Amino acid sequence: MTSFECVQLVVKTMGRTFAVLMLVLCGVIGIGRAQGNVRARDLGIPFDGTTGAFNAITDVKGVEVGNTTLIRGSGVLKIGVGPVRTGVTVVFPRGKSSRDPVFAGWFTENGNGEMTGTTWVEESGFLEGPVVITNTHSVGVARDAVIAWRLRNGPPSASGYSWSLPIVAETWDGYLNDVNGFHIKTEDVFQALDTAHGGAVEEGNVGGGTGMICSEFKGGIGTSSRTLSPKYGGYTVGVLVQCNYGQRDQLRIAGVPVGREIPGKPVWDDDVGSIIVVVATDAPLIPTQLKRMARRVSLGLGRDGSYSGNGSGDIFIAFSTDNPKAAAFTGVREVRMLANDAINPLFLATVQATEEAVVNAMIAARTMTGINDHTVVALPHDKLKEIMRKYNRLER
Amino acid sequence: MTSFECVQLVVKTMGRTFAVLMLVLCGVIGIGRAQGNVRARDLGIPFDGTTGAFNAITDVKGVEVGNTTLIRGSGVLKIGVGPVRTGVTVVFPRGKSSRDPVFAGWFTENGNGEMTGTTWVEESGFLEGPVVITNTHSVGVARDAVIAWRLRNGPPSASGYSWSLPIVAETWDGYLNDVNGFHIKTEDVFQALDTAHGGAVEEGNVGGGTGMICSEFKGGIGTSSRTLSPKYGGYTVGVLVQCNYGQRDQLRIAGVPVGREIPGKPVWDDDVGSIIVVVATDAPLIPTQLKRMARRVSLGLGRDGSYSGNGSGDIFIAFSTDNPKAAAFTGVREVRMLANDAINPLFLATVQATEEAVVNAMIAARTMTGINDHTVVALPHDKLKEIMRKYNRLER
Amino acid sequence: MTSFECVQLVVKTMGRTFAVLMLVLCGVIGIGRAQGNVRARDLGIPFDGTTGAFNAITDVKGVEVGNTTLIRGSGVLKIGVGPVRTGVTVVFPRGKSSRDPVFAGWFTENGNGEMTGTTWVEESGFLEGPVVITNTHSVGVARDAVIAWRLRNGPPSASGYSWSLPIVAETWDGYLNDVNGFHIKTEDVFQALDTAHGGAVEEGNVGGGTGMICSEFKGGIGTSSRTLSPKYGGYTVGVLVQCNYGQRDQLRIAGVPVGREIPGKPVWDDDVGSIIVVVATDAPLIPTQLKRMARRVSLGLGRDGSYSGNGSGDIFIAFSTDNPKAAAFTGVREVRMLANDAINPLFLATVQATEEAVVNAMIAARTMTGINDHTVVALPHDKLKEIMRKYNRLER
Amino acid sequence: MTSFECVQLVVKTMGRTFAVLMLVLCGVIGIGRAQGNVRARDLGIPFDGTTGAFNAITDVKGVEVGNTTLIRGSGVLKIGVGPVRTGVTVVFPRGKSSRDPVFAGWFTENGNGEMTGTTWVEESGFLEGPVVITNTHSVGVARDAVIAWRLRNGPPSASGYSWSLPIVAETWDGYLNDVNGFHIKTEDVFQALDTAHGGAVEEGNVGGGTGMICSEFKGGIGTSSRTLSPKYGGYTVGVLVQCNYGQRDQLRIAGVPVGREIPGKPVWDDDVGSIIVVVATDAPLIPTQLKRMARRVSLGLGRDGSYSGNGSGDIFIAFSTDNPKAAAFTGVREVRMLANDAINPLFLATVQATEEAVVNAMIAARTMTGINDHTVVALPHDKLKEIMRKYNRLER
Repeated sequence: MTSFECVQLVVKTMGRTFAVLMLVLCGVIGIGRAQGNVRARDLGIPFDGTTGAFNAITDVKGVEVGNTTLIRGSGVLKIGVGPVRTGVTVVFPRGKSSRDPVFAGWFTENGNGEMTGTTWVEESGFLEGPVVITNTHSVGVARDAVIAWRLRNGPPSASGYSWSLPIVAETWDGYLNDVNGFHIKTEDVFQALDTAHGGAVEEGNVGGGTGMICSEFKGGIGTSSRTLSPKYGGYTVGVLVQCNYGQRDQLRIAGVPVGREIPGKPVWDDDVGSIIVVVATDAPLIPTQLKRMARRVSLGLGRDGSYSGNGSGDIFIAFSTDNPKAAAFTGVREVRMLANDAINPLFLATVQATEEAVVNAMIAARTMTGINDHTVVALPHDKLKEIMRKYNRLER
Repeated sequence: MTSFECVQLVVKTMGRTFAVLMLVLCGVIGIGRAQGNVRARDLGIPFDGTTGAFNAITDVKGVEVGNTTLIRGSGVLKIGVGPVRTGVTVVFPRGKSSRDPVFAGWFTENGNGEMTGTTWVEESGFLEGPVVITNTHSVGVARDAVIAWRLRNGPPSASGYSWSLPIVAETWDGYLNDVNGFHIKTEDVFQALDTAHGGAVEEGNVGGGTGMICSEFKGGIGTSSRTLSPKYGGYTVGVLVQCNYGQRDQLRIAGVPVGREIPGKPVWDDDVGSIIVVVATDAPLIPTQLKRMARRVSLGLGRDGSYSGNGSGDIFIAFSTDNPKAAAFTGVREVRMLANDAINPLFLATVQATEEAVVNAMIAARTMTGINDHTVVALPHDKLKEIMRKYNRLER
Repeated sequence: MTSFECVQLVVKTMGRTFAVLMLVLCGVIGIGRAQGNVRARDLGIPFDGTTGAFNAITDVKGVEVGNTTLIRGSGVLKIGVGPVRTGVTVVFPRGKSSRDPVFAGWFTENGNGEMTGTTWVEESGFLEGPVVITNTHSVGVARDAVIAWRLRNGPPSASGYSWSLPIVAETWDGYLNDVNGFHIKTEDVFQALDTAHGGAVEEGNVGGGTGMICSEFKGGIGTSSRTLSPKYGGYTVGVLVQCNYGQRDQLRIAGVPVGREIPGKPVWDDDVGSIIVVVATDAPLIPTQLKRMARRVSLGLGRDGSYSGNGSGDIFIAFSTDNPKAAAFTGVREVRMLANDAINPLFLATVQATEEAVVNAMIAARTMTGINDHTVVALPHDKLKEIMRKYNRLER
Repeated sequence: MTSFECVQLVVKTMGRTFAVLMLVLCGVIGIGRAQGNVRARDLGIPFDGTTGAFNAITDVKGVEVGNTTLIRGSGVLKIGVGPVRTGVTVVFPRGKSSRDPVFAGWFTENGNGEMTGTTWVEESGFLEGPVVITNTHSVGVARDAVIAWRLRNGPPSASGYSWSLPIVAETWDGYLNDVNGFHIKTEDVFQALDTAHGGAVEEGNVGGGTGMICSEFKGGIGTSSRTLSPKYGGYTVGVLVQCNYGQRDQLRIAGVPVGREIPGKPVWDDDVGSIIVVVATDAPLIPTQLKRMARRVSLGLGRDGSYSGNGSGDIFIAFSTDNPKAAAFTGVREVRMLANDAINPLFLATVQATEEAVVNAMIAARTMTGINDHTVVALPHDKLKEIMRKYNRLER
């Protein structure tokens, strides 16, 4: 039993009230996904660059990820009842107990989506709380819940403003999930926030990614990281995606036209869906530079074959965990800034980690059946290996 | 009794369930605010340009405005209980029963605020539903409520997407209101949506503007309009503001340095707060042009003395009610576009109506006492007239 | 004889070859404009805030301004011959011998104009050389000349890139000047660069502003500055405008509707023209913050009555002279950053200095006759004082 | 002898004066490049989608391309003398005799470059003249020359504004060319403008691409096109690139990691250089949509392996030749707009044509020796085919 199955079991058999405790238990009994599950590199897919210890966004020190996964019911859709295939994923730049903002920047390749709070990120250069990702129709509840959680965990800030402009993003899971049933509740968001952790990151049908579809295979959460050589500063770049985009016949994996090699009726006949991408680094980048980094995500998605269709909300945010206490209330701060001329290895790392995180999401996801017995199949691992071999791109 | 007082009475004495009916009654008995209340022009403040019939955003045909005003309790703040001084204001471009998007554009002068849904406005050039304005900590509930209201009033759209990226903006009312009590509920948003109407528009302490502060006087909702001469196409431009920004000593009214002429301890010593501005027109502008129009709002605020402080969320959206059915799902549409070289009268109208709407918000607002007996005084009409006379700027 | 007349004399009577020496002489004999000429404050126009020593952009330490003024011929336009009423103005952030870039940001209120090099400012956060302003049809020659001047004064940079993306902006002087005659030559640009200096700044019909029109009065170059109190860091903000925009009946000076109080046939019946605004500060702002500062220029123009017409190129750039050596080629730099929450006095200073610089441009400009005997009258000082008095806004 | 060699011969042996006539002759004697030269598809490189007749940007009806190629001297660099390896490429949206603007939008993936005129494109939604591409230090001369050429070919427009804000872009050829010698003259720009033509487009070491380097192989001009099926409107998308970017070990061709399969000392050890991309279509897109299209170029470059290094000026402009006469001076125009929901085939076509145009630039380019005997080798065709075969991606 993987930790993911453990979570499913917990969620199915118990109310949400005990789920948090059980999730901790799932972790304790040592059946974490990262140990039990296969990732893209495990299959021999060739990627460039050196990953961090977990090949995850959490390789950037301080970053914590939490998930709430809601899987309930089956069969015919009854709005407000289910079936439910959705969740919430959160990313804390400095861990869940920090109140210290991080420098940040964002970018949109195609804006058929929502990421609240970006106007203030753009203006101030700071990301003040966590990044939260859920389904399209639950952005609001998640947004207010972030403020409520902040207030539940400490007094309001002196200014009265307390994470008052949260970052909440979304992709649409209505093919599998009762998205119009508004199943995400404040407590579900609290749970994801409360259980955020470092180390291995759950992938696939988990958190906000639970009901998502990627290149018309089952998608969801994926992650990857790169570490630079000491020559380039030894920095780490981590990427986490909630992958719900892409048209199958465009899918390239490590340059190989995988999508068209796998026959079968696709879910859509179009590039719909969306992808939210969070980029973390410990390199000392100022907001201008982090915006540039966010823009490189497009190039990573380009490698995977994306053309960013009209229906896609392809929205990216990048932050740096360096420069603690930069968001002072008064006076002048000394902040560290990497030379623009030294930034290329970070750009390349962002492209590479994005490219891989998307594939990891598909590799980790399992076939899922949701509303009205809609089924989305997982990318078949054996078939994938066979295709990679055909194009001489399978690593031993 | 003005309609505003009527609304207050209704809201105080009855549950929200019956409030909608009573609001209609308030309207029927003919005590509309526009008749009973004083506006800036009534005081002799000189503004340029010709207004529409109501000097309101609703002079743009089809535009409807609705408000829910929550005023409950007094005395010491008890989070979650009150006092409550808040609300919701909605603006429908084509009336509440239309499902037809409008061309739109947006702009931020200072982004310490939220307007959800703007990423899709920017990308698509369309505003698909209403613009909703509330307090900072209620953006989420209002956002999801817009989707829920859409679904309550008709089946989901064919795509499954149903106003899934609502436009919800905010300003912060925590000086007077228990903003951390999350008092806005889904039903409050429904009420504002259900009761939207054309004709005279409530101003001052109403809707989302209930607890707002403008130039350190009591602020709130304000509106104004301009109609162009037939020579310039005879178009109408309407502006609605939720005014919660400004530093008193910078306030200029019709160019007169009113702020520094009125002594007294200001609320803040800074330009905090925010202002949300909605610009409507029936001129045939395409999205590129509407973005330009939104940018002119800054120039109107400049006339009033704004310097757009760091704490201010000064976010503007402009839409055109022309070009019905432009948001087709397939094929090619003929759309109407005004020549760029003919757009100046619309730009000037936007500046003028913005300048006046801000003043109207202050003129209409009444002194209010909120949490912890915080009191914000209204701009005193007699004193204002005296100052205008001193500078030879009072008409009549 | 003012220094300006001195310049005119030099330029009329001698070749450009000797003009540089004579210009220095003009300065030496002590007839600088700032001493001899009247500025807005001298007339009793009330402005807020404390100016620096010169009430000029050069109050920001290190900033140098240079001008080349070309006034030749009169009567009927003969393209390529004249009459010529044009020039070049340059602003060096750190003085003409520095090669050290400055942090910068830019903004466009209305983009019917050109400022080359902004794409790299936006991307890198740095302004690498001077800001140059000339007429619309001479942007190209000025742009390449900046590179040539850089190469003339030192070996290429190690990268081969040597100010290769210059900042050159323009406004259109074709009502008075033979703009299609391409009269600005490489040497004219060199002269402006070579003669840049600190201290008092020439205003009115000088440099790039020579043939410009502002609010349908004679316009040109104007400047102003503000110094903050030690409580707010003691920083200086300086603004320089090349003012060629505005519609007379909209003109407000210190809030007074001056434009409509002065009868007479206006030049245009529209808001055409353009305004280029350069904002300098010694406050430690990072690029994100300088972009915000540039955006405040709009609010200053709003105070003066601008509605930023379709034909106007209203383009602004802001830079900070703090953080020398921030543009390192490798490694990590410590840079200083003012807290966002401490930035308001700088925003207000930007608004105020912009408001005043525009008026200074008009006050300094003299009536000019150009091609085809087109004449643009200067704003009459006595009439202006009379109007200010009428509205109780003339300071003693 | 290919037409390209013909051009070289003409340019080497004659003054520029006769070159235009000879260029025509080169065309007449039927040795056009498109017939004689190999392109990527000819080698068996697999690309998706259906090309137009010329697989060139000129497949969009009305589009004309002109080049001036300057190749003079060899050996040691003497600034101002040579060796010269540079040129000018121009793209006319509606042919060289049209004065009718086109709808347009632009985007920057990385802004270490220049494209003048974009501020007005962004503001107005129109591209008013040709797109010109040259070397970094000749942008200015080319810019003013566009205005001069416009004036040479007809009276100024009524407004006095005559293509006054030209679009001129650049990439840096200083590794092969005496870029600091400013060898491009007004006449060279005129020649490119005068000789623009439809039909087959010269590629490789031609025009602005003469001295350019792509993925550390010889680069230059490349082009490609896609035509959509009637089901999707039958529209055409054409792309032209001036390719001077990329790091060899990142280069992917049709997904195959070609760069690392070809040993040898690369020119740089970094992603420097730049790429300018022009996208043309006859689909009825409004400016908002053309900006979206321009943004898809990044995804095409992603497929080729770009990570858009700090030193790269990756700037893209897209225009539509539909909607003639949309840029009216007065009144309201009916313009055609494709539904956003129908736009995906155009996005995909943009990605595909970009991907292929870059490869075409490298396939067409020949090994070149420039200043100081710097040599940049062409991508070896045979080796490329061998690599494609190794990865089972060579089409028969």
